[in-house]
Amino acid sequence: MSPRPRFLFDVGSPNAFLAHEAIPAIEKRIGVRFDYVPVLLGGIFKATNNKSPAETLAGIKNKREFQAIETERFIKRFQVAPYVWNPFFPVNTLNLMRAAVAAQFEGVFEPYVEAAFHHMWREPKKMDDPGVATEALVASGLDGVRLLARAQEGDVKATLITNTQDAVERGAFGSPTFFVGSEMFFGKEQLRDVEEMILGKQQQRRE
Amino acid sequence: MSPRPRFLFDVGSPNAFLAHEAIPAIEKRIGVRFDYVPVLLGGIFKATNNKSPAETLAGIKNKREFQAIETERFIKRFQVAPYVWNPFFPVNTLNLMRAAVAAQFEGVFEPYVEAAFHHMWREPKKMDDPGVATEALVASGLDGVRLLARAQEGDVKATLITNTQDAVERGAFGSPTFFVGSEMFFGKEQLRDVEEMILGKQQQRRE
Repeated sequence: MSPRPRFLFDVGSPNAFLAHEAIPAIEKRIGVRFDYVPVLLGGIFKATNNKSPAETLAGIKNKREFQAIETERFIKRFQVAPYVWNPFFPVNTLNLMRAAVAAQFEGVFEPYVEAAFHHMWREPKKMDDPGVATEALVASGLDGVRLLARAQEGDVKATLITNTQDAVERGAFGSPTFFVGSEMFFGKEQLRDVEEMILGKQQQRRE
Repeated sequence: MSPRPRFLFDVGSPNAFLAHEAIPAIEKRIGVRFDYVPVLLGGIFKATNNKSPAETLAGIKNKREFQAIETERFIKRFQVAPYVWNPFFPVNTLNLMRAAVAAQFEGVFEPYVEAAFHHMWREPKKMDDPGVATEALVASGLDGVRLLARAQEGDVKATLITNTQDAVERGAFGSPTFFVGSEMFFGKEQLRDVEEMILGKQQQRRE
């Protein structure tokens, strides 16, 4: 069996969205499935004293422009469509990420992740407004009312906290973060390193 | 003729040193020579309102540790020896980088760059002490007295300023920075992208 890479994601991160868009082709290419792990990016930032690039790049000449170039290169390399900037950024994703855990518990994780990313970065909405979020999820064929209610239950909240704490303990400080075994990779640019490391491990097993 | 990549460097940057160590094998592999451009990293930081990783990573959990992992991966990928941490970091490199320009004017640029990096990151010394710097350069077979005197002349100072301003105008904000034509790459991790872009351009010319 191939090692299964983990993708720690928060739907509030545009770079996590681009990674999500690039992952299916990688999965097909190397014959593995990524294990999606919902985390709260705000919680990771708080635990590590880190901040979002939107904050850390503010006021630094050239650096934000270079990140835009990196995004263009990523889009070209992985042949994905660019995101549509969410005018409500930063969107508080606490309830959305709790609902991601709820969706895991309810057996609708994959369509939920697809829908949540879609309504954040394809047809962006103010997804921290419960009414907007419910309507958007319903439009994507999900039981938005049920998922957002389930999101408020203790087991769901506890799982998101555990996922987030576990991420920090293993070395995470931002988004997107990937693991291949205990090896961590950070940033959408390192998706190619993730792919290479999996291929390397597959090669080792065959030898 | 192959496009000639540019490597903007300041000998005070350990990541520039590692890039410098990796470059000869790349040059051999793809048949190009890198054009080394002396810049003052402190000047780039000042002009862009950026800071060194040593400052920006301080107090952020996991991020510095991850940079150490990235450095280990770089060392493994490019088969170079790790640097020896300079106990006098940050070393003020104003005179060393002026002397790099002086060495260009005097026709001893390559041995100077080799020596300056060596005394910063192989056998690290307090290279912003003029006596220490002179002695170190002499030990490496250079006319340290002459180069450090030449470093104080107007044409040398002006060239370093021009190189640094030009770097900022083209998009630089840190070290190491590379250019292939007008395409910029930042960080030692992107040396592989530099190599790929050159190979792509070589391929285009052949087609």
